[in-house]
Amino acid sequence: MRWGHRFRDKRVTTHVALAARAFGASGIILADVNDNEVKATVEKTVAIWGGKFSFEMGASWKETVAAWKSKGGVIVHLTAYGENVQTSDVMGRIRSSDENILVIVGSQKVPKEFFSPDVSDFNVAVGNQPHSEISSLAVFLDRLYGGKQFGLDFNGARLRIVPQKHGKKVAKS
Amino acid sequence: MRWGHRFRDKRVTTHVALAARAFGASGIILADVNDNEVKATVEKTVAIWGGKFSFEMGASWKETVAAWKSKGGVIVHLTAYGENVQTSDVMGRIRSSDENILVIVGSQKVPKEFFSPDVSDFNVAVGNQPHSEISSLAVFLDRLYGGKQFGLDFNGARLRIVPQKHGKKVAKS
Repeated sequence: MRWGHRFRDKRVTTHVALAARAFGASGIILADVNDNEVKATVEKTVAIWGGKFSFEMGASWKETVAAWKSKGGVIVHLTAYGENVQTSDVMGRIRSSDENILVIVGSQKVPKEFFSPDVSDFNVAVGNQPHSEISSLAVFLDRLYGGKQFGLDFNGARLRIVPQKHGKKVAKS
Repeated sequence: MRWGHRFRDKRVTTHVALAARAFGASGIILADVNDNEVKATVEKTVAIWGGKFSFEMGASWKETVAAWKSKGGVIVHLTAYGENVQTSDVMGRIRSSDENILVIVGSQKVPKEFFSPDVSDFNVAVGNQPHSEISSLAVFLDRLYGGKQFGLDFNGARLRIVPQKHGKKVAKS
């Protein structure tokens, strides 16, 4: 769930969504706002580069959290104030759960409820320094999936990159 | 080196800089452009949260690359078209060098020379899917430093986060 889009710009939220997709998330929920431009950019990326990735928007963060909890899902809030992804055992505790995970990323200011156990089962800090919700999400997912997301096959892609030491190569598929 | 700021917005470039700092880079070079607003935001972050982090801007990418090469440094260009950080041995080859590393992040379109061995010793893909220069930089540095960057002490900080399972705690130092 992406909260705080109204305090950012379309580009940052688009980057959050594209990182979520590229790093193996199954979809993104834009909370408390509608932005058809961001939605169109993300859907165009999925149409070209493949895979399944849902885009939802408009529901409030409270509705989204309540719906997730009612299905037994786990909620992880990424924040510089949380338990350090490297120096604490928080990733192990998260991995030991079998439930679906909703990751909340915000912007500079988020509702104080996000820190509460009523909302977030885990508050995870990708380092206890300020940086970006995009870098936080990327490293959290990289560690959660152990890098396997970069070997994923994105079904139904129209284009596929053929990795090169130098130069650019794209194949139609 | 951040290329392509003119095609993004201040926020994205600021996030690139803050991620670079939080993930252990020693500084950032904004190529081919001056932006005093981004510079001020980054310098304010360093003043509050500590550490050493240089901010340079205005030089062209060609000057920056030539100067780096003249000192024997290695250049890594992060691009979805490059060698996959997970499924290739590129990280091992980069780590086996003892030289200082200049990481180039761009935006959607970058000069084609960036892909050439005349500029980049390595073209590294943080997955071969489109996402964000911020997520690419974060995961590249996380893997380069093996997570140790999150245990770094940022000297001279005015404020320091005290990690919490729930809630926010900041100490003055």
